[in-house]
Order: sequence, then structure tokens, then C-alpha cells
Amino acid sequence: MLKTRMQRASLVTTLLACSLYGSVHASEPASFPNAAASDPATLGWMVGAPPPPDRILRFEDGSYFQFPALRWSVSNFRQLMPTINVSRGLSAPVALPRALRSDIDNLHFMPLNGKTSMTWKESLAANYTDGIVVLHQGRIVYERYFGVLKADGQHGAMSVTKSLIGTMGATLVAEGRIDANKRVAKYVPELAQSAFGNATIRQVLDMTTGLKFSEDYADPKAEVWAHAQAGNPLPKPKDYTGPRSYYEFLQTVQPQGQHGVAFGYKTVNTDVLGWVIARVTGRNVAELLSERIWRRLGAEQDAYFSVDSIGTPFAGGGFNAGLRDLARFGEMLRNNGRYHGQQIVPKSVVDDIRRGGDKEAFAQANYTLLPGWSYRNMWWVTHNEDGAYTARGVHGQTIYIDPKAEMVIVRFASNPVAGNAANDPTSLPAYHALAQHLLAHPR
Amino acid sequence: MLKTRMQRASLVTTLLACSLYGSVHASEPASFPNAAASDPATLGWMVGAPPPPDRILRFEDGSYFQFPALRWSVSNFRQLMPTINVSRGLSAPVALPRALRSDIDNLHFMPLNGKTSMTWKESLAANYTDGIVVLHQGRIVYERYFGVLKADGQHGAMSVTKSLIGTMGATLVAEGRIDANKRVAKYVPELAQSAFGNATIRQVLDMTTGLKFSEDYADPKAEVWAHAQAGNPLPKPKDYTGPRSYYEFLQTVQPQGQHGVAFGYKTVNTDVLGWVIARVTGRNVAELLSERIWRRLGAEQDAYFSVDSIGTPFAGGGFNAGLRDLARFGEMLRNNGRYHGQQIVPKSVVDDIRRGGDKEAFAQANYTLLPGWSYRNMWWVTHNEDGAYTARGVHGQTIYIDPKAEMVIVRFASNPVAGNAANDPTSLPAYHALAQHLLAHPR
Repeated sequence: MLKTRMQRASLVTTLLACSLYGSVHASEPASFPNAAASDPATLGWMVGAPPPPDRILRFEDGSYFQFPALRWSVSNFRQLMPTINVSRGLSAPVALPRALRSDIDNLHFMPLNGKTSMTWKESLAANYTDGIVVLHQGRIVYERYFGVLKADGQHGAMSVTKSLIGTMGATLVAEGRIDANKRVAKYVPELAQSAFGNATIRQVLDMTTGLKFSEDYADPKAEVWAHAQAGNPLPKPKDYTGPRSYYEFLQTVQPQGQHGVAFGYKTVNTDVLGWVIARVTGRNVAELLSERIWRRLGAEQDAYFSVDSIGTPFAGGGFNAGLRDLARFGEMLRNNGRYHGQQIVPKSVVDDIRRGGDKEAFAQANYTLLPGWSYRNMWWVTHNEDGAYTARGVHGQTIYIDPKAEMVIVRFASNPVAGNAANDPTSLPAYHALAQHLLAHPR
Repeated sequence: MLKTRMQRASLVTTLLACSLYGSVHASEPASFPNAAASDPATLGWMVGAPPPPDRILRFEDGSYFQFPALRWSVSNFRQLMPTINVSRGLSAPVALPRALRSDIDNLHFMPLNGKTSMTWKESLAANYTDGIVVLHQGRIVYERYFGVLKADGQHGAMSVTKSLIGTMGATLVAEGRIDANKRVAKYVPELAQSAFGNATIRQVLDMTTGLKFSEDYADPKAEVWAHAQAGNPLPKPKDYTGPRSYYEFLQTVQPQGQHGVAFGYKTVNTDVLGWVIARVTGRNVAELLSERIWRRLGAEQDAYFSVDSIGTPFAGGGFNAGLRDLARFGEMLRNNGRYHGQQIVPKSVVDDIRRGGDKEAFAQANYTLLPGWSYRNMWWVTHNEDGAYTARGVHGQTIYIDPKAEMVIVRFASNPVAGNAANDPTSLPAYHALAQHLLAHPR
């Protein structure tokens, strides 16, 4: 039992951080119940009037983010914390054409470092999938929901959020409203004395900033805790003296190493980009995402962001959306930014993402499962033969775009292990195998 | 300055209660800035990255509900507190036909107890209107938005919520799933020892229960504070020993007087009805409202409820929706429950509302501005020559249905005075004058 308010508050920040960050490298012990045994619909979280005491999840005590409860929470963040709407507008959704295929479930692939093959269907359970949709040539060829997620529900996108923010940032660069070669302090003078002050926007977009910012959850002094506590919308403990918003926290980040040398995946880069975007456009990222993208996609649902105590949308990981709407976003990019009769994102931005970032810089971050990859405009670029690029979030959130195979996959998941090193072995080769299958059997 | 956590918490509950209840009788001093001077768009609440310190509104310290800040908050509750979605589903919205009229703004009427007439347009400012739509014969003849509310925004419906819950409750009665003559304890045994235990469902639906429940905000011991604190989703103070959810609070309500004798407008009746509905259907009121009504109205936006710390939607006053969608709901009732090709609410339920409740019981509550009215299924029934009935919430929220004039008005507002005694003099006669005008000049 945690006895003091401070201890409880610490736990909250811990769990918030675990939930919302995207860069967990260490793998945790894999002694979790499997997908069926941890099914949140079966377990009945928050069902009943009132729910049974052991099925009530609270934001304040962190219970909501302990596995397997997190399998409910990722589909219900707005019931736990304040949020800001991303309006789809009021017009009719634009239907995604459907051409479902029955030949996908039994597709075999070899997991990374594996010895026996696995079927596509098996991979969904292995990855604790909550929902997955596959578009091929713009048509839904596969779609599944598990647990408490429904087609008309919304799921946390975690660090997939970063790729949406990066896309908007790169768009503003393409439009000349942000100069990627200028320093962050030009746009946000409050960051002049922080590590970000003399970093360029390009370095922020590609996460090659040199920052003293540890996301090592095992270290109680890691900066990740202070970031999470600053962004936590709950009232602060009485004796709390730290930063009280994302913006206040970002001003405290100190330099470490040089900018522009090595890829360092740190959530705060996206928060800084969100701040720059807000300063330049006069709109926070939720408002801008609605105006620029969500209203123009023919989305079928509003989306939302979690917010801190002063209403700042969490650019680094707070986005939640419907599965199919995120697929519409991916399909728009696959079509070089053109969708639903409009150029929504400049083609040059998509080209820039597809070309990728600095492979040398990326290699220094030692992602052993991602050899030869790079990072550009907050997208992960595989540089494989299909030119695939992907958005990735903890616990298995994914947008995977394979231009050659004309395929877009969006997967929501609630893997007990946060870091994608736990998902990649049974997801990346599955995506690639499906791409090759669709290329070989286009129908 | 409030110095202690407890003092701050008390203020929060005070303001929560003031915001969400619907039965403020006392009029407060009327020394508030007018609509133009208090315009929330002009004042710039929560605008900026970050907003200026004096434009930041926080749930925890209650600043969000001080006038004029409340004029922003009523359109942005979800940014301040956790909420649960009321899905519209995924199909295309059904457009409301438009036939705008220019002859409404200059319509004159005499305010209640007034000496000089006022125009319709003047009444909007007098009532601090945030948005208003008028349907005549199913077509939008008038629509205006002010301040920060837009057509694609959502506004707190306050106690208008009660009429939606009452409509669902009466529907379950009509379907035979709830017996209105049975006692509450039959459905919710946990309430057996409370004042509600031996009240009938009918008495709850018509608020003729005898309850020791004061909504006198001037009395620090009034039960209204305990109710608000129980439902407040923020963490409770460490030394707090009271009820921690709406359901826990309802079990503490004590009897006072007899059931079935006098109308007593008390929010807790609706919370009890919400509990009965949840117990009978296995769905909370947000889920049921989506399933039974919102998905079938052709609504253009999802709606939402605020929730307590265990996820209970606030049935007594926590609903938020788009203006036009609430108009669709009103139009459905005007059409005897039939809308968009479906019978959404049984005609018998609408007939029952229109017949009204016990006028004698109502008269004992001394609403001097509402002579000859009654209350039925959580609707206010005028018994005027047009057979108008209305849903009413603090700060000026309204659905007003005039069957004879084939007119539905929905108004969202942020009047500095909570009680509708402040709104009624310049709204009720305006609605009636417009009804007569539309009858005389139907186009």
C-alpha cells in the first residue's frame, strides 16, 4: 500500500509515463497472461452499477494502467482524464470501400529471430491486438476488433501521435511558415536557455537533438518522471515545486552531447514541435489537426488529445482516434498526400518522409531489430525494398505504409510490454509478408 | 486566497454544484458585465501557448466556473474533467432542412413583469445566449452562435440532461421493463434504507419524493455540497470520509415529509433514475442514450457526459451536446417520438409528458414565474394554450417544444445567474411570442 499522497502522485506519474512514452528499450519479464486470459471484455472492467470494487479503475491511483487493466484503459482514456476534441466537422463520412479477403488469416511468416513460422491470425493474439485494419489499393481487405474496442470506439495512439505532429510540422516547413534551418529559440524564445534553444527545427523533427533526458524507467531520477508529473492534469501535491505544464517542463531540459549527430528518440522533441506549431499558427495541435487534416479526410469520428492542466494537448503521445480514421490518414499519405479529392499534405512532405533521415545517426541508437532504418519528420523509415515507413507507439500502436504493395496497416494493441521490441518480432515480418502476398495476389 | 487543500476542495465542490444543479431559486446580485463585455472569445480564455496566467482556467481551483470564465467552460467541459462518449454511430448525419427567416430578430415581446417591450434579438444578449436554433415544421428557421460556441461544438446541457434521462426512464416504463408503481428498492436494493427505498419510480420520475436534500448554496451544511463532493472525479482529500461516488451518496439521502404530495425539484431523483435504468438495462445512461436515441437521430456529433471517479455518468446534469443535435431530439419528440423513419420514443411516452403531472403538487413549490405548470417524466409542462413543454437547465439551457406552433427551440446560454428565474422573464414570453408569430405567419 502506498500511504502518502506524494507516493501516490509518484505512482501516477510513473504509470502515466509508462503509458504515454514511446521509447522503452528494456524488455520486461514476459510472465503475463495471454490475450484471451487478459481480454478486457471478459474481465469486465468498469462494468456494473457500480462495478465490483476490484473492477474499478482510477486515474489517481494508477490502477488503470496496470496490466491487464490497461487493456480497458487504452480504449477509454477520456473516461480517466480531461481531453480536447479533434472535430471531424459535420459533413458525411467518406466510406472506405470494402473488399474483404479470407486468405490473410492463414498467411504464414517467420518471426524475427524465430525458428518456427506463425500465422497472421496467431500474430494478432501474440501482439495483444485490440483492432487492426488493412487497406490494399484503398479498399479494406481485413478488419478485426477484440476486447472492448469497437469500430465506433477510439483508442490511444501513444507515440503514433508523434508522426501526426511531425507531418504537420513538415507541412508548415514546406509552406514556408517554419524555416527548418532556424533555431527553436527563434520561434519560442522561452526555450532559449534550454537544450532546445540552439537546436534547429530540422534536428527536432528528426530527433537528433542532444538532450539530457532519460526515459529509463528504472531510474527514479530520470527526467521522464518530471516530464510526466509536469503534464499530469491532476492537482499537484501541496509541496510540489516543479514545472506545472509541458511548456514549463520543456524549459528545464538541459543539453547533453551535440545536436545533429545521433538519433535519440525522446518524446520532448515532439512536445517542442507542438509548441512551435502553436506559436506559428495560433492554434494548438488539436485545433490544427482538425482544421488541416481531420475535417478533410472524410473521417467518421472525432478524435481527441489528452491535455495538461493548462489545456496543452500532449503532442508527444496523447492522441486517440478510431481505427479506420487513422487508416484514412495513412491512405492519404500513401496517395502522396492527396485524398478525397484534395491535396491534404504536400507531396513534397511525403516524398521527404519516404526518402528518410540520416541512417548513420539512426544506427548510433542501437535498435538491433531495426537495421538500416532511419527517422524523418517523426516517422520511422524502413528503407526496405518496398520503401515502407511507419508510425510506432508503445504497447503496439502502428501505422505501417508500404507504397510498393499499395498497403496501409493500422494496428491498435495493448501488449503488456511497452517497448516495441516486444511487438516487432511478430509484427514487422507479418506486415512484410502480407505486403508480398498482396503484391503476388492482388486479386 | 484559499490556503489549504481542504478549502480548495470545498470551493471545487461549491462551484461544481453551482454549475451542475438546476434548482437555484435565490437570485444573486445582478451586477455582472453584460453579454458583450463578458464575451468569452473576446476575453481569450485558454488561448495562447501558453495562455496568459490570468486566462488559464483550472478545474481544481474552481476558477473555471467563476463568471465570466464560465462562459468559456460551458463549451469546454471535457477539457476540464473526465467524460464518457455518447456515440452517434458512424453513418451519415441526417441534415436538418433550412428555411431561414429574417423576420424573427425584430419580433417584439413583453418581458414577464416588464413595462417596455424587447426584441427577440435583444433577448439573446439579455440572456447571455451562446447558441440558439429554432425549428418550425422541421426546418431551421433561425440559428445563431455567440462567444466560443460553434455549430460543431458541444455545450453543457446542465439540467436539460434530466429530461433526456426522464424520457429514457418513461420509455422503459412504457416497454414494461420498469414498473412505475413499484418501489425504487425493488430495482436497487442498496437504496432500501435511504429515503428513496419506499418511493415509487413514478414519484422519482415526477420528483414528488420527500427528501432531506437542500440545494441552498448559502448553507454550508446543505446536502448539495456532499453530493457534489461525492461526484467530483478529482482525488479526495486525505482526511475525507464521505461518499466517493454518486451511488454511494444516494444511499445516504434521508426522508423528509411524505412521498407523492409535493413537487420538489431535486437533482438526486434523476441520479436515482439513472441508477435504476443502469440496473435494469445493464447499460449506463451514456451507453443507453447512444443505443436508443443518439444513433437513431441522424445526429451530426457525438455527445458526452461528465463522470464521477468510478465512471458513473452524471444523470442529474452532466450531458453535453451539439445545439442542432439537441434540436433533432426535440423535433423527434414534437413528432410524437417518430423521426428519421423510426419510432424512437413510444408515442405514449410523449403523450404522457404532454398531459403533464400533478398541478397541485407543483403549485406547492412556489415557482411564481411558472403559474399553472406541472412536472412529468422530468419535463416542465406549461399547460399553456399551445401545450408547450420544456427541458430547463441552470444558466439558461433550454429545449422548448410548442406542439401547436410546430416549433422547437434549443438555447444554450451562460447567464451569470444560475437559476432560471433570471432567464425566464426574457425567454419564456419570447418563445411564446415567436410561437404565435409562426402560427400567424407560417410562410
